[in-house]
Amino acid sequence: MTYAVGVDYGTLSGRAVVVRVGDGAELGSAVHAYRHGVIERTLPATGETLPPDWALQDPEDYLDVLRTAVPEAVAAAGIDPSAVIGIGIDVTSCTVLPVLRDGTPLCRLRPGSRHAYVKLWKHHAAQAQADRMTEIAQRRGEPWLGRYGGRISSEWLLPKALQVLDEDPATWAATERWIEAADWIVWQLCGRETRSAGTAGYKGIFQDGAYPSRGYLTALNPAFAAITSKIDGPVAPLGATAGNLTKNAAEMTGLPEGIPVAVGNIDAHVTNAAAKALDPGQLLAIMGTSTCHVINSPEISEIPGMCGVVDGGVIDGLYGYEAGQSGVGDIFHWYVTTTGQTHEQLTEKAARQPVGAHGLVALDWLSGNRSVLVDHHLSGLIVGLTLATEPHEIYRALIESTAFGARKIVESYEKGGIPVTEFIVAGGLKRNDLVMRVYADVLNRPISVAPSEQAPALGSAIHAAVAAGAYPGVREAAAVMGRLEKDVYHPDPANTAVYDQLYAEYDRLHEQFGVLDTMSHRLRRIRDAALSQEVP
Amino acid sequence: MTYAVGVDYGTLSGRAVVVRVGDGAELGSAVHAYRHGVIERTLPATGETLPPDWALQDPEDYLDVLRTAVPEAVAAAGIDPSAVIGIGIDVTSCTVLPVLRDGTPLCRLRPGSRHAYVKLWKHHAAQAQADRMTEIAQRRGEPWLGRYGGRISSEWLLPKALQVLDEDPATWAATERWIEAADWIVWQLCGRETRSAGTAGYKGIFQDGAYPSRGYLTALNPAFAAITSKIDGPVAPLGATAGNLTKNAAEMTGLPEGIPVAVGNIDAHVTNAAAKALDPGQLLAIMGTSTCHVINSPEISEIPGMCGVVDGGVIDGLYGYEAGQSGVGDIFHWYVTTTGQTHEQLTEKAARQPVGAHGLVALDWLSGNRSVLVDHHLSGLIVGLTLATEPHEIYRALIESTAFGARKIVESYEKGGIPVTEFIVAGGLKRNDLVMRVYADVLNRPISVAPSEQAPALGSAIHAAVAAGAYPGVREAAAVMGRLEKDVYHPDPANTAVYDQLYAEYDRLHEQFGVLDTMSHRLRRIRDAALSQEVP
Repeated sequence: MTYAVGVDYGTLSGRAVVVRVGDGAELGSAVHAYRHGVIERTLPATGETLPPDWALQDPEDYLDVLRTAVPEAVAAAGIDPSAVIGIGIDVTSCTVLPVLRDGTPLCRLRPGSRHAYVKLWKHHAAQAQADRMTEIAQRRGEPWLGRYGGRISSEWLLPKALQVLDEDPATWAATERWIEAADWIVWQLCGRETRSAGTAGYKGIFQDGAYPSRGYLTALNPAFAAITSKIDGPVAPLGATAGNLTKNAAEMTGLPEGIPVAVGNIDAHVTNAAAKALDPGQLLAIMGTSTCHVINSPEISEIPGMCGVVDGGVIDGLYGYEAGQSGVGDIFHWYVTTTGQTHEQLTEKAARQPVGAHGLVALDWLSGNRSVLVDHHLSGLIVGLTLATEPHEIYRALIESTAFGARKIVESYEKGGIPVTEFIVAGGLKRNDLVMRVYADVLNRPISVAPSEQAPALGSAIHAAVAAGAYPGVREAAAVMGRLEKDVYHPDPANTAVYDQLYAEYDRLHEQFGVLDTMSHRLRRIRDAALSQEVP
Repeated sequence: MTYAVGVDYGTLSGRAVVVRVGDGAELGSAVHAYRHGVIERTLPATGETLPPDWALQDPEDYLDVLRTAVPEAVAAAGIDPSAVIGIGIDVTSCTVLPVLRDGTPLCRLRPGSRHAYVKLWKHHAAQAQADRMTEIAQRRGEPWLGRYGGRISSEWLLPKALQVLDEDPATWAATERWIEAADWIVWQLCGRETRSAGTAGYKGIFQDGAYPSRGYLTALNPAFAAITSKIDGPVAPLGATAGNLTKNAAEMTGLPEGIPVAVGNIDAHVTNAAAKALDPGQLLAIMGTSTCHVINSPEISEIPGMCGVVDGGVIDGLYGYEAGQSGVGDIFHWYVTTTGQTHEQLTEKAARQPVGAHGLVALDWLSGNRSVLVDHHLSGLIVGLTLATEPHEIYRALIESTAFGARKIVESYEKGGIPVTEFIVAGGLKRNDLVMRVYADVLNRPISVAPSEQAPALGSAIHAAVAAGAYPGVREAAAVMGRLEKDVYHPDPANTAVYDQLYAEYDRLHEQFGVLDTMSHRLRRIRDAALSQEVP
């Protein structure tokens, strides 16, 4: 019997899972909540107030996961740690930090500088930089722009770096390496810096073997061309071995020194292995606070508003496509906090209501829009409110709005020549019956479910098993170790017909507020001006 | 010492006030809550479910007010009832009922017919009839259409009558007189049917001495021309005497038989007398669950979206203009019911927030839009929602939306050649500091306040005093008996500048959702279809 360990780094905690290599059984797991959580209001070292849209982390929390959750998971599994043959990890992305050449995080040396910390995926304060990157790439006709849906997201590696340079040149000068958290944690495990094909491709704009050109970087800011020396080096394929567990990391984790460490992965993408969703046509939606939509294809296509298409970005040998919705479960949770009612109370009443009976349509942009508009400064909207509108109706309309957002993405994939033959759901919302039924009705297709409660960690363990040589490749490992329940939810034709009408209204709002009128942006500027006067 | 009694019939209750004729002092009052309240869900006599948008009343409740509240008010005032020299009343409008030639309400004879009851002002189920009336009036070029802002409201006397004919011809055939509740109550007091210049002009489309032509009525429905014989008769000026208190009514009220009964009035319009707001340029906003905006002018002007301009409609000798917002306090109350918080909690937090800091704009159409769009099937909307949006921010945005709606009305008056030199607030919201400050800032003008807590009843007492001959006219009586506090709230220039920006966004939404795109109507049709399938 051999085992692989997968570690999944989420937004608030890290989870380690011990998986049996022979059949994918999840034998034990443990979670470690980050001591610093998400740093978004005040910087602990100085107490200073962070501006809106900031979201930082402390990398020490990632090491604590290795120190606590990994040995606890092994203990929970009741296995002999010496039977563990490999470890793999996945992390939210683009979650990125500045470090020294030896891997030391800059925030250890400069704890008072907010730019020295990890910028979490949902740090949205680099919008100005992202806009500049898009505009200059358009002007220069950069060949890679179309592969990212025509727009650079503020969440990515380069805008976040450019924000450091723009706002804190001293910290930027002290940055020797600018690296994804996934790659940094792998480095801490095996003592060797690598860059994963996934993180480099989706977040670093690494295409056809190269990062953006010196000319482009210089056009952004003459000093920015130097970023190349902070991110260069070989890019490793997914499923490959990044190195072997160091003595130090073996002591931290309690795992055998020298076992293979898999190349790091993005949490959403690694889930495809756990869900056996690696064939063309299988769209995996990882639905939690936000949703990622990942699909593979032998074809390369440039689809407006997609987050990216990357050769081998999800599995080696296929083009991996990613789209996303930046707020989903977050939106439901937000609404619950504005009412005196619970999810359960709202769900119970909402589930009893006929489709369309609330007379509402909402735009699911409360956390901006990742796909297909790539604009984090958009905001949400509810139309159709009357004095008779009840909270559970708004709750239902918000759920539906995210389903409409998902339909927009599916339609964009298909219009772009990437057929979607199966819609698979993983993530925390997969067991929410109302949400799943609404999605099946809105999408007018059956919904399959990836049943693992810790799918990303399972996916990382699958990658670890491949890195350890237990399987010839990720697809073969996933076929044995992954899990998928086919067609669990089916659309109801009567509901589908009504949703087609409501979706037409969503579509109009999408065009009006996402394309024709930038009211969200103006309201945001008014808001920012009002708040800046408030701060002394 | 002499006294006048004013009785104000609101949506849920009637209030009687005893006023000293010499100085307007309010000496005693009493309220009687209608036993049947607003009948909007089920018809008590049959238990049948009423369709959406229905709102009925039982006229017996109006008589109960005379039987209970009037003697209680006299007792509370501690006066000798024989010193009362006149009585006046005002009622919500257009609140209208079918009766026999002798005044017997049809619902007494046909309690199982929903169309036999009083249709309350907010009965909005005659929208189809109102639309037909507008369309045919446009087609025929009816000369009076422009005096009602170019659109007929579903709230008015004729659409409500046409709905009876369309949906229940038997009840229509049994209707001998179709009469405003104000005129019916006056009839019960003095035993003589009159029609007030106010109700006839604003709600009955009585212009230049005539109701709409036989040709027009026939075009609506050949059988509808007969309405003329159900509403005809002389129209009496405001401030005039309708008749004298009958023996029967004297017994009901405990007031002296034979005292003058003033011509009935509309609750909003009678408030102008109480607020000393009878001069050209003085705009009186009666702000409660909804708002009426009333102003007088020597000029006649046809202003799009106004509810109406009527010669002598508010005071004899001037053109009275009315505009309205169909939801105001109702909207704030609605929002409170959707949160776990109180008005006080939300107000306290909202009041501390800088203008614009919430990043929100809303459309105040949760109960439709009376002015300037005259469309009760419009619905509300909130733009700018983010995961950081808090309930008090939405609450504030809703307050602001009603202020923007009021600004739209003021601007429409001024564009139409009716200058607004003073903005006076009466009604329940006048003492809400946050609401008043927002209005002053949004309107960028000082706000005066009519301080009476029972201003319509005071206004009715003023009309009673005039009917009794204590003053030569309503203006002279109001100058002594009315009350007005000038310029209580002042705009803050810094806030005003931000509100100008937010109002520009409101204006865009107003155009988009009120004029360009009828999404509200489509959502309503989807809703109605969904709900009609639900009913077995």
